[in-house]
Amino acid sequence: MIQLPQPLKSLILNFSKLNGVGERTALRYVLQILQWDKSDQLEFAKNLSALKDVRNCQKCGVLSDLDCCPICADQTRVDHGVICVVEGISDLIAIEKSGQFSGTYHILGGVLNPLAGIGPDKLRVKELIERIRDKHVQELVLAINPSVEGEATCSYLKDLLPDFVSMKRIGFGVPIGGNLEFLDPLTIMKAFENKSNL
Amino acid sequence: MIQLPQPLKSLILNFSKLNGVGERTALRYVLQILQWDKSDQLEFAKNLSALKDVRNCQKCGVLSDLDCCPICADQTRVDHGVICVVEGISDLIAIEKSGQFSGTYHILGGVLNPLAGIGPDKLRVKELIERIRDKHVQELVLAINPSVEGEATCSYLKDLLPDFVSMKRIGFGVPIGGNLEFLDPLTIMKAFENKSNL
Repeated sequence: MIQLPQPLKSLILNFSKLNGVGERTALRYVLQILQWDKSDQLEFAKNLSALKDVRNCQKCGVLSDLDCCPICADQTRVDHGVICVVEGISDLIAIEKSGQFSGTYHILGGVLNPLAGIGPDKLRVKELIERIRDKHVQELVLAINPSVEGEATCSYLKDLLPDFVSMKRIGFGVPIGGNLEFLDPLTIMKAFENKSNL
Repeated sequence: MIQLPQPLKSLILNFSKLNGVGERTALRYVLQILQWDKSDQLEFAKNLSALKDVRNCQKCGVLSDLDCCPICADQTRVDHGVICVVEGISDLIAIEKSGQFSGTYHILGGVLNPLAGIGPDKLRVKELIERIRDKHVQELVLAINPSVEGEATCSYLKDLLPDFVSMKRIGFGVPIGGNLEFLDPLTIMKAFENKSNL
């Protein structure tokens, strides 16, 4: 096998650490970056080094430049009494894109998974309880993805949190553009459970 | 849309410049890197900055730490009189993996493509002519990928280079593990053209 220069070999290793990137894809990325301007390469490196300074919003836990993220600080959002609990920031971004929610968020940082050693102490559960205690929170919307671990996490939160907070779960069923023919039986079961009047 | 911190936004732009990486994949990569140890992030950045020092072998043009790459310098390779002409380093790596070639290489840096403004001056054609003039080269193997531009490049080289060098093209046909049922008519045509005695 050909001996690549050391920085290339290390960079291929760095890229292959990303999920979904194998050694061949990593090599392809590195060869592409080699074609870039030197200034673009250095800017890429500089942005990577800057990641170490990225903080989390002290309220919701989202990545932010400031101690309080723009969403938590935004007084024009109507429903500051409603908290939408999500697993991670990608889910938050997807919900914000839909424009369907005007409350604040709480990033849980994952779901309970005892087999992988993820207990309540690894998630931002304590922070959620504190937020409910401190503030006038009326409603929690659990926008946690449907999976065995997701459902377990929802049940856990339901048992843990005080009764005066109303807890809701997002709706499940056939996605728009979906086709019954290609959907799994569980989704179809959920769609029938959640049927509504026309 | 949620306002991500500036280094994240810039980093997503950096990643989306890679072919095959869209904004969503870039975001996924960046969120993963955020989970890494700070030291791993900094090492990634350091390796990227080091790319600017990577040089090319002055003979074959492959990426190298030194002025002369390990392949060109390797006196145990038998066929120093045979040069295999490839488009880029990924093709060289694939050929080296097969272990079927014991000469040296010449990286062309692409193929002729007048529509994209790639003429002979953008490729390492001049360097190839110089190598043939200086050294005792007996044979060129054109391992250029089969495409309209690839064939045009081969014809161009055939016309340009002196007659005392024997020029060969790699063989085309049905790949091992391939299935006639799923192959395109051109490949099957080539397979019939290149039939050999049993």
